[in-house]
Order: sequence, then C-alpha cells, then structure tokens
Amino acid sequence: MGKKAQFNLKVPKGTRDWDGKDMVIRDKIFQTITTVFKKHGAQTIDTPVFELKEILSGKYGEDSKLIYDLADQGGEITSLRYDLTVPFARYLAMNPQVQNIKRYHIAKVYRRDQPAMTKGRMREFYQCDFDIAGSYDPMLPDAEILRITTEILDNLDIGKYTIKLNHRKILDGLFAVCGVPEDKIRTISSAVDKLDKVSWEEVRKEMTEEKGLDGEVADRIGTYVVKKGGADLLSELEKDESLMSSESAKKGVEDLKLLFEYLDIFNVTPKVSFDLSLARGLDYYTGIIYEIVTEASAPPAKAAGAEGEKPKKKPKKINKDDPDADRSDDPTVGVGSIAAGGRYDELVGMFSSSAKGGIPCVGISFGVDRIFSIIKAKTEAQTVRNTEVDVYVIAFGMGKEFTGLVKERMKVCKELWDAGVKAEFSYKVKAKFQTQFKDAEKNGVPFAVIIGEDELAQGVVKIKEMGLPEGHPDKNGVVVKYEDMIPEVKKRIEQFNREREVIQGVEQATLVESKQE
Amino acid sequence: MGKKAQFNLKVPKGTRDWDGKDMVIRDKIFQTITTVFKKHGAQTIDTPVFELKEILSGKYGEDSKLIYDLADQGGEITSLRYDLTVPFARYLAMNPQVQNIKRYHIAKVYRRDQPAMTKGRMREFYQCDFDIAGSYDPMLPDAEILRITTEILDNLDIGKYTIKLNHRKILDGLFAVCGVPEDKIRTISSAVDKLDKVSWEEVRKEMTEEKGLDGEVADRIGTYVVKKGGADLLSELEKDESLMSSESAKKGVEDLKLLFEYLDIFNVTPKVSFDLSLARGLDYYTGIIYEIVTEASAPPAKAAGAEGEKPKKKPKKINKDDPDADRSDDPTVGVGSIAAGGRYDELVGMFSSSAKGGIPCVGISFGVDRIFSIIKAKTEAQTVRNTEVDVYVIAFGMGKEFTGLVKERMKVCKELWDAGVKAEFSYKVKAKFQTQFKDAEKNGVPFAVIIGEDELAQGVVKIKEMGLPEGHPDKNGVVVKYEDMIPEVKKRIEQFNREREVIQGVEQATLVESKQE
Repeated sequence: MGKKAQFNLKVPKGTRDWDGKDMVIRDKIFQTITTVFKKHGAQTIDTPVFELKEILSGKYGEDSKLIYDLADQGGEITSLRYDLTVPFARYLAMNPQVQNIKRYHIAKVYRRDQPAMTKGRMREFYQCDFDIAGSYDPMLPDAEILRITTEILDNLDIGKYTIKLNHRKILDGLFAVCGVPEDKIRTISSAVDKLDKVSWEEVRKEMTEEKGLDGEVADRIGTYVVKKGGADLLSELEKDESLMSSESAKKGVEDLKLLFEYLDIFNVTPKVSFDLSLARGLDYYTGIIYEIVTEASAPPAKAAGAEGEKPKKKPKKINKDDPDADRSDDPTVGVGSIAAGGRYDELVGMFSSSAKGGIPCVGISFGVDRIFSIIKAKTEAQTVRNTEVDVYVIAFGMGKEFTGLVKERMKVCKELWDAGVKAEFSYKVKAKFQTQFKDAEKNGVPFAVIIGEDELAQGVVKIKEMGLPEGHPDKNGVVVKYEDMIPEVKKRIEQFNREREVIQGVEQATLVESKQE
Repeated sequence: MGKKAQFNLKVPKGTRDWDGKDMVIRDKIFQTITTVFKKHGAQTIDTPVFELKEILSGKYGEDSKLIYDLADQGGEITSLRYDLTVPFARYLAMNPQVQNIKRYHIAKVYRRDQPAMTKGRMREFYQCDFDIAGSYDPMLPDAEILRITTEILDNLDIGKYTIKLNHRKILDGLFAVCGVPEDKIRTISSAVDKLDKVSWEEVRKEMTEEKGLDGEVADRIGTYVVKKGGADLLSELEKDESLMSSESAKKGVEDLKLLFEYLDIFNVTPKVSFDLSLARGLDYYTGIIYEIVTEASAPPAKAAGAEGEKPKKKPKKINKDDPDADRSDDPTVGVGSIAAGGRYDELVGMFSSSAKGGIPCVGISFGVDRIFSIIKAKTEAQTVRNTEVDVYVIAFGMGKEFTGLVKERMKVCKELWDAGVKAEFSYKVKAKFQTQFKDAEKNGVPFAVIIGEDELAQGVVKIKEMGLPEGHPDKNGVVVKYEDMIPEVKKRIEQFNREREVIQGVEQATLVESKQE
C-alpha cells in the first residue's frame, strides 16, 4: 500500500460512469417505464451478465463478431450477453413450468463495436425489454404490447412519435409474389429496410447491382414498399388478387386487420403507420414487427433523398436488429428508433429439447440511451437535485464561544430520521452558520431546521423554508416548540410536495390534452 | 433458423437466474435499503461492469487470481469488477471536482471462485455499498454509517444482530507493544481474525508454529484479543500504560471514545460490541473497522471451541475481505457476517496523480445474498405475489352463444389503465368464466370487475373483492353504474391497501417497541 502506481486512469473504451443529474434522469426513466410494466401485470427476471458461449452462438448472424468473450481461465467458455432476448428464450426453455409470463428486464448488454459516444453508441449500454410469452388467441398480447408502448412514451413526455408497423408474413408473401428467389429473401429484405434512410433508387441499385436481383422483380417490389397507411392500406392489399394468392401474405393481412380492431379499442391506432418498407434485420421474427421513431430521431430531410438529392455518403451495412443498433457511420442519420420489436414464435423452440417445441413470444425493447438523450435535452435548463434530502439541520451562533452544537444537531437529525424524514447535518463540529446554510442551498434542500443556544434553552426550534422571496411572512422561518418539530416539519414537507405535484399535474394535463387533439 | 442445435441448456457455473418469489423478495430488500440511503442524502453512481485490468491489479492481494478477465479480442485488456469499492475509488480519482459525496451502489460483482450454491457462494452476486467520501471532522461520517446500518437492519426486520467494532490503529499499536515484528503484523492480524471461528489455542498454534511468532509475544496478544465490551473496555485500555505508549493505539482509543459519544446520540451503542479480535483482511483499512453478525449467521457453539472441544475440521485460509467472502469450506460456519466495512483514507490516493493525495472514505458493504437467505427463510410460509395487478377484468356468460366479450373486456381494461389502475384480462377470446376467475385467483389479484351482456345492457358492472368469506355481504360482488366504475374501483383498492398497511404497521410497531426494550 501507499506506493503510487502508473495508472491509465480511465474507464474502458465505449463505457462510461453514470452520476449526478444524468443518473437522476436515467433513474426517473426506469421508474416511469417500470411503473407502466407493473400496471400491466409484468414481473421481472434477472439473468447472469454472461452466458455459455454456445447459447449465444448462431443467434446474431454477422454481428456475432461483436460478442464479448470472457478469457478462458479454465472451465466453461462464456460470453457477455449481447441482448436480453436470447437469455429470456434460454430461461423459458430451461423452465418448462413457465408456460406463460409477462416479463420485463432492464439491464446492461455488451457489444464489442466501434464506439461513437457522441451518437450514444456504446459498448456497454442499457436495454429495457418487455415480452409476453404464451400460447394465446391471435393479436391480443400484440395489441397490449403496443398499448404499453404508447403509455410509456406518453408518460415519458417524449414528444411526437410514430409506431411503424409491418408483418413478416406480408413481406414474405410480397417478395414471393414479386418473384424474389427463396434464397434471396433475407438479403432483399434488408435492402428494403434501408428505405427510411436512403432513396428508392439507391435501394434498387443495391438489389440489382449488388445482389443480382432481376430489374423487373425489383420494380414490382418498388410498387409495394413505398406504401404507407392504416386500415385503408390493408383493404387495398386485400383487393390485390396477386398478393392474396400468397397464403403467407393473406395470413399477415388477416392478423393486421384484427390487430387494428384491437388497437382502436386501446386508442393506439392514431400513433400507428402501417409501413410496407419496414423489414427489420433479425431472422427470428415471425409475425408483426414494429419500430418507434420520434421527430427527434428522424433523419434530416437530405438523407431521405428528397428533391432527388443523393446522400453524400452511402450508408454502410446497417444492422437494424434492435433499437440501439444503429451501427452505421452515416452522419446524416438521427438517433434512430427509440424502441423496436416484434413477434418471435420459434426462438424458444431453438433451445427447447421437447418435441412440443417452444413458446410463442412477442416483445419490445426500449433503447434507453436514446430516450435518455431526448429527455436530457428537454431538461437541460432545469435544475435536477442529486439527492432527496428534505431537511438540513443547522446550528445558529456566532463568535468564539460558539461550539457548533454538533451533538444537538445530531440529536435533531436522529429524531427526524426516526420519524422517516430525509435529513442531513454538516460533518463539521464547529460549523459556521453561513457555511451550513450554503450547504443546504447548494443541494437544493427545501427546509432548514435551525437550532441555537437560546432556542434550545427556550425549548423551541426554527423551521425555515429555503428560497422564499423577500417580504414573505415566513421568510425568516417559523418558531415552533421542540416537541412540535416533527409534526410541523412533516406537515410542511407534505404541503411543499403537494404544491410541486400540482405544478407537475398541470403539465401532465396539458400533455394529455395535446394528445387528444 | 428452425434447426435444433445441441445446447447445454444451463447458466454458467456459479450464476443463477432470479425470478418469481425470490425476485420479489430481493427487490423489496433493495427498496428498503435504498430508502434508508436516500433518507441520509445519498445519491447513486453506476460504473461499468468491467474495468481496465491494471485498475484492479494489486488491490486484492492473493485473491487477484479470482478476477475474471475478458478475452483479448484486440484492444484494451479488461476484467470484470471484483467489488464496488475499487471502481468507486477510481471514479473519485477521475473526478477531482467531486470532493465529497455520499454514494450508494447496488450492483453485481464477479469472482472466479469455487462456487458453493447451498451456502450462497456464487461467482456472480450482488453487493450493496454505501460510502461517505470527504475530509470531515473525526468520527462524524463514521457514526452516521453505523446509524444507517441499524436503520437498514431494523427496517429489514432481520432479527437480532451485533455490530462488531474495532480500530486498525489500536490493533497496530497492540501488535507493536506486544512485540510483533513489523513485517509479521499483517499475517498475525489475519490469524487473530479467525477467533470468531476457532479457539485461542488454535490461533496461538498458527501464530507460533506456522508463522514463527515468539510464544511469549503470542501470549501477550492473547491477553488483549479476548477482550470484548463497550465504552468500559475503552476506559480499561486508556489505563493500560504499556498500550498507551503506542501513539497509534492512543489515537485509535481517542477515535473510539468520540465515536461512542456520537453513537449514544444516534441510539446505536446498544448494538455495538467493541471486539479486539476483529481484524478484517483487507490492507486498505486505516481507521475503524466493523462487521455485522446476526444470530442466524453465528457459527454453532461447537465451532467456537466451547468446552474445550476442538472443531473437527480446521478452517482453511479465510478471506475476510468482505461480507460475502466466507471462502472457507468449513461446514460449521454459518452464513457469516451480513455486512462489513471500515475507514479507508488512502485508497483513492493510490489512483490519484495529484500530490495532494486522495479523499478519505468510510463505507459499508451489505451482503445482499446472505440477507436474502435470512429474509427468505422468514417468509417461507407467506404467499408472495409475483405481480402487482389490482383488478382482473372478467366476462360472465354461459352456453354456446357466449362470445367472451373480449372487446368489452379490453375497453374496460383500457379505462382502468387510463386511470392508472393495474389491470389484466385474459388473452383468450372465448374465455370461460371459471377459467378467468381461476386466473385471477391464481395470481392473487384482489379485485375482479365482472361484465356480462345483461349488465352492459343495463349500464352496470360488478366489482368483486376476491376471497371474501362465505356470508360476507359483498361476497357476490357489488353492482355499480358503469360511469362510477373507476372511482369505485379506486376507492376499494385504496381501502384494501390501507387495511393491509395497518396490519404491516402493527408488525412494525411491535418491532420498534422490542428495539426500545
């Protein structure tokens, strides 16, 4: 001990510490999200941060190279989790007694990627997943997932957002009907998925020149994937005899029709855009797929190829597997989607040894870091307190004889703590009055309990609400009997919090109204 | 996709999934602990799960071999964190603007150890740390840490417990005065630390035979380390001229005298046992050290070497670095201490490049897994609900014409969710009444809102409190107008929760009384 080593004093690349205001904001986001999950009957499970490597193998396609491995120190070969979905599927397969569950999981995941901190692309980042597992009647859990999504985004006050919705079966049918060879469906699908970032011309070029698709086939696809709408678009597709000749597309359209009926009841439809260009990368989706974009996360107009202008830099391969996975170097892209997911009925079965197969699932993953960036930008001007202390206990006195009354301050604190009041005192024995007062102000503590020799002799203390304006009758504090201190302090804190809630309530009401426009 | 791989369907050795009742209990423990931390003005910080390997190097002595390394996949060499203290010290050194902070951190740590699940010894486990960093007047933060500890253990209702307390400076002085050579102090200290597990004879043998200490020196140590007490023992030591000839011991005794004065004010003294045999392994402690043991965690009488009986198996080297680190194979040892810590004034300085040196710190680490085991054993007979749902929406109807009223159930749910009520409905379209009812019962949902064709036609619903005894006037539910449903449901939930709180309140009051005996 004592010897000073030569340290590289930093955190690993692509990771960060969370503290202060950032931490408070992030906690509040988690709390808001968790509250909604619990309102819908969800429970949480917690899985290890590392899994056997073979559990993760073959689930992430090309991105498997981004998996963090632990060193082989003898024993099992393990890797840090890449997402929360595969561990959940592994959990379900391992626990056959769990045939249905609504589970949420908020935890860190790991990707050995080129970090880009300014864009919020990290090697360690939080995901926040909610999934409903179980064999149920069609579209009922799917509808509730989307309802939960709107509740969360509304409660977070995230601003305007759109749920882009599509169905894997419609896409599969569409590609088949247009004449895409079976073995090209995945790669063509991933080209289509870029339509939110680049123009149709670019995508067509990729399909034909890079991926060798017949030009006529590409053009037929082009007539479909530009389509966006709601239930009206579904009716249009239903009348499309060519498309309806595909059993797969027919089934997908039926699903979405039912889904829209349910979404109407849940008042979610106004947020939904049925978008035939949404494909999403992950292989394991089998039903509806969705992605939530906000205005803040939309790419600038240029990138959309508006006015025939081509983006300056062609995006590299974009992995759309999850809301955090905008792995593109394209600087024209915004923060991307803030949540995404879909139905995956076969993933659990991949782990399950039973002949019966796995459990159907539908889920969503919220990109907490992106949501954090949006919320933080909105609260930039606001003061956020790092602690929740309600009372700072201060001794008043001056001159050389002033002892600092440390034991008396401790006694008052002890009584406040006993009564459940959040309280602090200065760790200085001979603390100056002004210093204590400034400590309380600096931390934004709303109340001070002030004690002095005279007051103690008279059996009274002073309760002072901090930051009252000049001229306020209570500006200099209110003197109360020592034995009334606890109820008086509690009364005032409750009053203070109620008033603060009213202010927040007004904001909330405004938000609700604007939603109902 | 679709192909079934040959998986080893398990979690890595020494890790586990947390779900169901266990998860609910653990969450409640975290919540209780966090509430107390916040009451004392703490904020939380979050550090990455892995650190640069060089940051961890040289901090854990022999146990460094237990550190998990990440594979070298190109780039930095990193390791999973071993505890939360070293990352906190690294954070403080990296953020010189933070000169004082009360911080808590609840997170997983990793040790590549031989797991012993039945004893709660895992490779991945939670630690829950609270530390006060800053240059303050002596013993003020130290006293508050111990006060926080009692509040947490009392609120957790952990049962009877003792805070074993000692001071590194007293120990150092004591060893010097007894004649232990400077270079043997650490190893003799660690032998002494085993006195809670084995007899003095065993420890003496280890000192003299294994570690080559002079027999007379050992015997002199023996006269001290059997001593336990409170402020009285301090007075006794003060009168010991030989011991007081050591500046170090003198300073330690002064510290503890002041600490006891403060602990009296905070009503912590009754829980404290000043115990000269407590040494604790970690090198970095510089002031007071403490360890909390419960009755549940005490070793059986035999192991204490009572009645001259020797323990059958000699404990191997025991690492007492932290509350979770009972790494002994000794089956006679209980769950060990449930929390431990101390003052470490020089650790931050090890990372800090400034000539000024680091920040003094004092902290405690709670062994959540051990606390979990104790709480779980106490709640074995209790039913713990996995979810927090308050209302299950049920359709009533029979016969072939019964549609299941799924859209009506969804509409009711939507209105309950809009009003902030935690509610669920069955994901079956033609759900049978009895099945829905059983679903609600199975999940312990306290209320059902029942709708039927007739009721809907009349504009009413039925609110039923589940589990009312036969003969109760509301046994069959209460019919209310549809427009009164929300306020009626909310009123009943509030009433239900109030009654439940009263019951818990009585238990709490009993606990508080028994503490004041």
